[in-house]
Amino acid sequence: MPAKVKIGKLVVIGVGLIGGSFALALKKARAVRHVVGVGRTRRNLALALGRGIVDEVVADPGRAVRDADFVLVATPVGQMAEVMARIAPDLPPHAVITDGGSTKQDVIAHARRCLGEHYVRFVPAHPIAGTETSGPAAAHPALYRGKSVILTPQPETGARALRIARAVWQQCGARVVRLDAREHDAIFAAVSHLPHVVAFALVNALARRPDARKLFGFSGGGLRDTVRIAGSSPEMWRDICLANREALLAALEGYAAELGRVRAAIERGDGAALGAMFENARAARSRWLLGKRR
Amino acid sequence: MPAKVKIGKLVVIGVGLIGGSFALALKKARAVRHVVGVGRTRRNLALALGRGIVDEVVADPGRAVRDADFVLVATPVGQMAEVMARIAPDLPPHAVITDGGSTKQDVIAHARRCLGEHYVRFVPAHPIAGTETSGPAAAHPALYRGKSVILTPQPETGARALRIARAVWQQCGARVVRLDAREHDAIFAAVSHLPHVVAFALVNALARRPDARKLFGFSGGGLRDTVRIAGSSPEMWRDICLANREALLAALEGYAAELGRVRAAIERGDGAALGAMFENARAARSRWLLGKRR
Repeated sequence: MPAKVKIGKLVVIGVGLIGGSFALALKKARAVRHVVGVGRTRRNLALALGRGIVDEVVADPGRAVRDADFVLVATPVGQMAEVMARIAPDLPPHAVITDGGSTKQDVIAHARRCLGEHYVRFVPAHPIAGTETSGPAAAHPALYRGKSVILTPQPETGARALRIARAVWQQCGARVVRLDAREHDAIFAAVSHLPHVVAFALVNALARRPDARKLFGFSGGGLRDTVRIAGSSPEMWRDICLANREALLAALEGYAAELGRVRAAIERGDGAALGAMFENARAARSRWLLGKRR
Repeated sequence: MPAKVKIGKLVVIGVGLIGGSFALALKKARAVRHVVGVGRTRRNLALALGRGIVDEVVADPGRAVRDADFVLVATPVGQMAEVMARIAPDLPPHAVITDGGSTKQDVIAHARRCLGEHYVRFVPAHPIAGTETSGPAAAHPALYRGKSVILTPQPETGARALRIARAVWQQCGARVVRLDAREHDAIFAAVSHLPHVVAFALVNALARRPDARKLFGFSGGGLRDTVRIAGSSPEMWRDICLANREALLAALEGYAAELGRVRAAIERGDGAALGAMFENARAARSRWLLGKRR
């Protein structure tokens, strides 16, 4: 049974899918009294207010976090350094800060640099709960239910902050897991960032052709699922690719080598090699799905 | 309103997803009197018989097609030449033959070479209705409902055979479309064969790593959908890759170039280029999905 905490004032910076769902989940769990939203566009803030995701909107992040008990930074990772620098002077000395970024080493580096004395109360987090939808319209209270949230606390992270952040994510319905930040970034470069790049590139390779309209007209469920995540936020994924550059390039290299092996087998008409590669892939996928079901 | 035809004796060679669903759909439409199944393994034939997909199983394809009215060749494309050579001496002079192969130029070349005088009654077809499942256990009567079946008739194809084959596929619930065989192969190299290669290669790139178990353990819905079609039949896809070699290599080249552009942008930290590429992909996917809904 996870510990229960009650947040007085929650500030959500970035009221999109991740931030909005976080607020809705905590409201539904009656784990928060008052939610303040901070965002870049009036349209998103109005939508978040209208949907009851936030109770109040404040334009200035610094002013918003005064007397906050808990702060979630849920902007694209490319904006987190600036957000942290702007809230640091106004954060109360007890506030716990977490984030929803898909990369961890860069976010931690920003926090170390920008949060000052508050860095000890920053608990880096990555909820594994994205979809190809984005924005406050896509937010829903059950987004985190049964999903993993990965925490990558640092040697400086305080025990109280860690305990509170873990309990809050659990109250969103999530299963909390700890990982080393570097390992986190390598794992997600492979299982998340690489597939997104693959999907974006596959759509572009087709869209670039003069017969693109016809191509898409004849496509079926296979292509549709393969490129579903190419509907994801371009800005968010641009930031992730830049933030996790080294690990992603390594994953891309492994993938390009694999693609080269398939291509070479097709070129030399090597049915045995192709059959073995496809069989390996099918078997690995089956083992993986079986493992997930357990 | 599509024309109705009633088949006396239907022979299905290959009682898997495509052949089995074809028989079930025609039985459900009461468009066939008697179905004979031919297959490589006793296990699949027993399953097809047990599920009521076929009424009779015959080991020898030549013997099976004697007094057949309609024949569907639904084996992997790599076996079609041999199947056609074996049935040609025994085909009755009125029998209409169609196939379920995902590539058309090679299947047409096999038919021209192997079917002899019966070639004029061969109507090349590609039902766009595959899934990642295979075998007679996956067959179901609604597989073709609302799906496209592409016919690529040749100058030699007889009008009666074409009319009958079209009506039979329509009675399976399919929407019948005509395409030039060469254009068909180029289109499906891009929208179907390439995505399969991408999915197989992506799974293998992850499975090859020493931390594969951990990787898959942390993966989510994004990867799962991106590689769904890596569950497809390795044998079928090996054959398709070999049969549609030229078109697939061209599609692979375009994709590898696109992947190279993303990689180069990540390497030089070019956020503007990455953002533009991802935005292009998202917009193209949206237009495509909107077009599908119309």
